[in-house]
Amino acid sequence: MASAPSAAPPGLSLPPRYLVFLGDVTEPGYAKTAFGLRDWAPERCVGEVALPQATVTTGLPRVGVGEAAALGARGLVIGIANRGGVIPDAWVAVLQEALRSGLDLVSGMHSRLADLPGLAELAAEHGRRLIDVRVPPTDLPVASGRKRTGKRILTVGTDCALGKKYTALSIARGLSARGIDATFRASGQTGIMIAGSGIPIDAVVADFIAGAAECLSPDAAPDHVDVIEGQGSLFHPAYGAVSLGLLQGSQPDAFVVCHAPGRSEILGHPGQPVPSVEDVIAQTIALGRVTNPAICCAGISLNTAGLDDAAAAEAIETVAARTGLPAADPIRGGAPFDRLLDACAR
Amino acid sequence: MASAPSAAPPGLSLPPRYLVFLGDVTEPGYAKTAFGLRDWAPERCVGEVALPQATVTTGLPRVGVGEAAALGARGLVIGIANRGGVIPDAWVAVLQEALRSGLDLVSGMHSRLADLPGLAELAAEHGRRLIDVRVPPTDLPVASGRKRTGKRILTVGTDCALGKKYTALSIARGLSARGIDATFRASGQTGIMIAGSGIPIDAVVADFIAGAAECLSPDAAPDHVDVIEGQGSLFHPAYGAVSLGLLQGSQPDAFVVCHAPGRSEILGHPGQPVPSVEDVIAQTIALGRVTNPAICCAGISLNTAGLDDAAAAEAIETVAARTGLPAADPIRGGAPFDRLLDACAR
Repeated sequence: MASAPSAAPPGLSLPPRYLVFLGDVTEPGYAKTAFGLRDWAPERCVGEVALPQATVTTGLPRVGVGEAAALGARGLVIGIANRGGVIPDAWVAVLQEALRSGLDLVSGMHSRLADLPGLAELAAEHGRRLIDVRVPPTDLPVASGRKRTGKRILTVGTDCALGKKYTALSIARGLSARGIDATFRASGQTGIMIAGSGIPIDAVVADFIAGAAECLSPDAAPDHVDVIEGQGSLFHPAYGAVSLGLLQGSQPDAFVVCHAPGRSEILGHPGQPVPSVEDVIAQTIALGRVTNPAICCAGISLNTAGLDDAAAAEAIETVAARTGLPAADPIRGGAPFDRLLDACAR
Repeated sequence: MASAPSAAPPGLSLPPRYLVFLGDVTEPGYAKTAFGLRDWAPERCVGEVALPQATVTTGLPRVGVGEAAALGARGLVIGIANRGGVIPDAWVAVLQEALRSGLDLVSGMHSRLADLPGLAELAAEHGRRLIDVRVPPTDLPVASGRKRTGKRILTVGTDCALGKKYTALSIARGLSARGIDATFRASGQTGIMIAGSGIPIDAVVADFIAGAAECLSPDAAPDHVDVIEGQGSLFHPAYGAVSLGLLQGSQPDAFVVCHAPGRSEILGHPGQPVPSVEDVIAQTIALGRVTNPAICCAGISLNTAGLDDAAAAEAIETVAARTGLPAADPIRGGAPFDRLLDACAR
């Protein structure tokens, strides 16, 4: 997303160009990371590689591992998030070949790369890195609360899994298209692979969550905008802590509330009500003020994937009228999203 | 504090009786853990042991390591929290002697016991445990948000280090004295040593903070009261996340706000204002409702250590009148604390 700030990228730092590995995937839903890379970081992807059994493709060029290295790839990224997060033995030969070809390995799976047969030895032998993006850096500080230079926008939510990453990516891309110096800041594993850097906030030890968020959006030029990927929800019974640490460490000037109309219960928590957009705005301001007294809500991002065009337009108009704030579905874009970007640019 | 619930103690489980080790301490401020054990868990302490250089005493009987074991001690607790949390080499001989005498070792220092010379081998040889109370259990779940049986009171704060542990201990003791079945639940290292069990919440990985808090106060009899030691403050720039995870996982029926009158800036964060008691009440209710819609504020605990009697009484009356809630300094006790206990008992 636009120009990088002058400082080193925060937290994990991934190789600049990737080969995307699809394993033996036959279910497109498991290849979300690969599709995310294709859609949001095509300039980082030299191509894809898969086992013969795979039936899913990203449409990126099919290249061999050695060929990918010749094309400029410096890492092989596992583009799959299967159930359980386990790397099957059948994938290991390709991973070993990648190390021998001079590629780092990048994984967001639960399996640790170093625990797979032969990988640690091969990585040492060839001077390559095994990068588990679920594992945060070990040198995170306790937050200072010090005001940093530059501007920050954070996406927050009424629940998990309703578009906080997508919204942040869309806003960063939209601001960049307007000539604003904006950087997407990743706080989750897929976002980190897309951005090439970031910190998996949900894996950080409690005392250091806000400190990790401070590292994620360091001092920057006065007009620079960091667009920070949110996590969880202040109203989530399990993940509220992650959301609050990220909010207070990010010290955002503005935030965008992400919501899925029609979702009435927190995902995976039957009977637990999704909060109103208004409640999320009020609490985000009340607790975000701790580190940025000027915090304000820039608008609302609705995930209208389940609605037809007319119902989506109505949902967007309804929440905009109710709150007096710009509202849009970034996937649908159009005039509403332009108005949301206007607010973010202010 | 009073009878233990039928379930196994949550998280870390310490030996039932201790020998308190004072090292070579000459500064009473570093012996706070030892004094806390003497004051709050005298029934767990068979005595103290110190190196000849030590000049501080808890007043507990001085006993040798072997004698302590004969008196029923099953663990040696390091009662010191020095600057840096490093265990000096000069202490190691006593720690080794304790293992040889059949005692577990319990430490809240940053140094890990297993990293000290010979301790891991001796512990294995004698079948003893090395318990670092800063290290949380590894099998913590993600929070479910499920409503648990029994009653819960949580202490919350306007800042760190102003009496949340002391207040919870005082309330648990006070309720027990009234015949109420109450248990102090420890979320920090000194509290864990006093209670003999607990979870160091600030060391838990972000995704599991609320889940750890759920484990800390498990299902209990309908009339049983868990009094849970709070951590940090929702308004603390570094530790808000810890406070929110503990709040939402604890699902308290009532909370007590701990505050130090006259403290205007967050400790260690110059320029960061301490929130008002009213703001803490409002936000604790707004976010605590997520897991307990019936949450209410039982009252206010003031740390008036810096005030003379008249000023303390005035500060207590002022905040009580302003909020319409019972207020007291548990250390001063008296009628105000009785009224706070009345509210907690309801």
